Amino acid sequence: MALIVQKFGGTSVGSVERIAQVAEKIKACKAEGHDLIIVVSAMSGETNRLIGLAREISAQPDPREMDVILSTGEQVTIGLLAMKLQSIGVPAISYTGAQVRIETDSSFGKARIQHIDEGRLRAELDAGKVVIVAGFQGMDEHGNITTLGRGGSDTTGVALAAALKADECQIYTDVDGVYTTDPRVVEGARRLEKITFEEMLEMASLGSKVLQIRAVEFAGKYNVPLRVLHSFKEGPGTLITLEEDLSMEQPVISGIAFNRDEAKLTIRGVPDTPGVAYKILGPVSAANIEIDMIVQNVSQDQTTDFTFTVNRIDQRRTEEILNKVAAEIGAREVAGDSAIAKVSIVGVGMRSHAGVASKMFEALSLHGINILMISTSEIKISVVIDEKYLELAVRTLHSAFELDAPEQDADQI
Amino acid sequence: MALIVQKFGGTSVGSVERIAQVAEKIKACKAEGHDLIIVVSAMSGETNRLIGLAREISAQPDPREMDVILSTGEQVTIGLLAMKLQSIGVPAISYTGAQVRIETDSSFGKARIQHIDEGRLRAELDAGKVVIVAGFQGMDEHGNITTLGRGGSDTTGVALAAALKADECQIYTDVDGVYTTDPRVVEGARRLEKITFEEMLEMASLGSKVLQIRAVEFAGKYNVPLRVLHSFKEGPGTLITLEEDLSMEQPVISGIAFNRDEAKLTIRGVPDTPGVAYKILGPVSAANIEIDMIVQNVSQDQTTDFTFTVNRIDQRRTEEILNKVAAEIGAREVAGDSAIAKVSIVGVGMRSHAGVASKMFEALSLHGINILMISTSEIKISVVIDEKYLELAVRTLHSAFELDAPEQDADQI
Repeated sequence: MALIVQKFGGTSVGSVERIAQVAEKIKACKAEGHDLIIVVSAMSGETNRLIGLAREISAQPDPREMDVILSTGEQVTIGLLAMKLQSIGVPAISYTGAQVRIETDSSFGKARIQHIDEGRLRAELDAGKVVIVAGFQGMDEHGNITTLGRGGSDTTGVALAAALKADECQIYTDVDGVYTTDPRVVEGARRLEKITFEEMLEMASLGSKVLQIRAVEFAGKYNVPLRVLHSFKEGPGTLITLEEDLSMEQPVISGIAFNRDEAKLTIRGVPDTPGVAYKILGPVSAANIEIDMIVQNVSQDQTTDFTFTVNRIDQRRTEEILNKVAAEIGAREVAGDSAIAKVSIVGVGMRSHAGVASKMFEALSLHGINILMISTSEIKISVVIDEKYLELAVRTLHSAFELDAPEQDADQI
Repeated sequence: MALIVQKFGGTSVGSVERIAQVAEKIKACKAEGHDLIIVVSAMSGETNRLIGLAREISAQPDPREMDVILSTGEQVTIGLLAMKLQSIGVPAISYTGAQVRIETDSSFGKARIQHIDEGRLRAELDAGKVVIVAGFQGMDEHGNITTLGRGGSDTTGVALAAALKADECQIYTDVDGVYTTDPRVVEGARRLEKITFEEMLEMASLGSKVLQIRAVEFAGKYNVPLRVLHSFKEGPGTLITLEEDLSMEQPVISGIAFNRDEAKLTIRGVPDTPGVAYKILGPVSAANIEIDMIVQNVSQDQTTDFTFTVNRIDQRRTEEILNKVAAEIGAREVAGDSAIAKVSIVGVGMRSHAGVASKMFEALSLHGINILMISTSEIKISVVIDEKYLELAVRTLHSAFELDAPEQDADQI
């Protein structure tokens, strides 16, 4: 018998019929003897409806009052799911964030969980009940209702699992696990049995939007085993854990992530003096534009080329800033390019394997794919390439690192 | 400067536009220097939408979970109204029932308020804020969310006014006050300046559905001056107070109430023995059918006729019960009649005036209206008549008791 936290997102509880399906799933799991805490989001569309109402009322809605309104979405779902479970013979009870007492700071709309009172939940579990908790919400020390921001329900699930020292936190979603890469791009993409938090963070932040980054970080910090599963299909999903799996041969690369969200900006002929990087990037950061990759080319004749990427929606604004900066520091020109893509190989295995980068570059060059930028971390190598080669690059790397291999038998919980 | 509690119902806050209108009204009142507590209902239609969702989930929704769901309706309104007030420069803050701490018993769906913590509200008022409180809801001693039942927002308003010793509790609605009778029936019906709680209770329970009976009882018990006003029209409304107004000549009759909701049932030829009333009415009550008027006719030759009224929707069921009872006690026959109406004259003035009843009966007989049943209390006389005479009877009595007279100057708050 295990203590399991299960989180169901807005799509999984998006209609009365789906709530009924989720209830049956919970009933089956409860029948296996597990203690269950269920975290749910607002029914899909509800949060947007509430935001719409608030925006009609005020262009700049007060954040505290916004949270009062938004938190009702999850509150409706917990009541409906608890009712449904009871109606099929499963003892269940709902808790809002405030009732659990999920204490957060007072940053309305993006509050951080500070403490969870586990006493009441523990008592309900001991009484044999399935406890349904509203995701995404809490209360601050003054009793104000707070929300954790979009995707906050994943964080609620992980935080509850950490507080209760649950055996596993299961995130039910519309995919049946984390894949080696996007199956829409590579037919041979396969579901990963296991992945580490570190790898998942790299995969997630690079565009595999299965889990909220914040929830993965949280799970890693408190070592909460996290499992991604499909809401309405059977299967073991993907387990995300702290430990690298030493019992099986660790593959060098776990997955390939990619995105097309970025644009590349180059400022050429920059006088190569100390502090010039700050002079260029300072004004960009000051405009709240997030910078991803940065490359400064080898300096030639006292000048250098400076290249970085930003989100495409920020490209125009960034160019305007750079044009001003270029004039100030005496740079030659500013060039922008949005027809790029970023491809990354991710794997804790690359730590102990030399030659991963060269293997990657070789595979790409064999297909004539030119690398525009390179960035590396301990468990990740990213390259920026021409957007038109994206699918080819992903398929090439998927094969080169032997990710197409058939999968082993799946673990069962 | 006064402390005023204002309650706005679902229609008054039924759209973003209406919420904006209510906000302007509050702003104007605040500008006069008053301290304001505002109680709001769910936006019209929202409570029914939520009930519909719950009914889809379960034919017998759990009452605790029903309250979790229903309480979200008011929670959305308080957030929206607080936002709107802030956006027009009025400092405002929202409170759910649980946040105020409106403590109730644990009768989900029909909870009774037991205690209100006034500390936080007082602090917000002292800080110059308009406090928006969710009507209809509270929490029990275990922290469970409760609701007070339909119309509970009136009760919340009165209870807050009592706890804070407010100068007045204003109920904003879709009529501009309490009328001598329904203006759709009598053209000369006029708005009452003042009415006592006692009279209001008789008027309300007889079908003038301006205020919730429970709220009026509550206001009477704690002597909270209650004023009924129109949400979107100017005017002094009707003040409901404990005291009969001795400074002006008290009219004998304050108003005429009526309804068509009842059916009359007669069981004839009942052997006139002790305990026979209980034998007849016991099974009816046991079936949860509410009985209103009861008349037992003078006994003739050891038998009696027994007549009473129930709500029309219960007529069929009551007849079935009576047919069984008639067989058991040896009564002659059972007859039902739903083509009836009840007309009542109400007024504390009748206590000190003889001849009110005879004046009423005379006025009706002059128009050939036959009285089928009579029932009296200290401040009310009700008659049951043939439904087709209803309008004629109301108009006749309205004139006979001089209620058509033009109104005096209106008091201002």
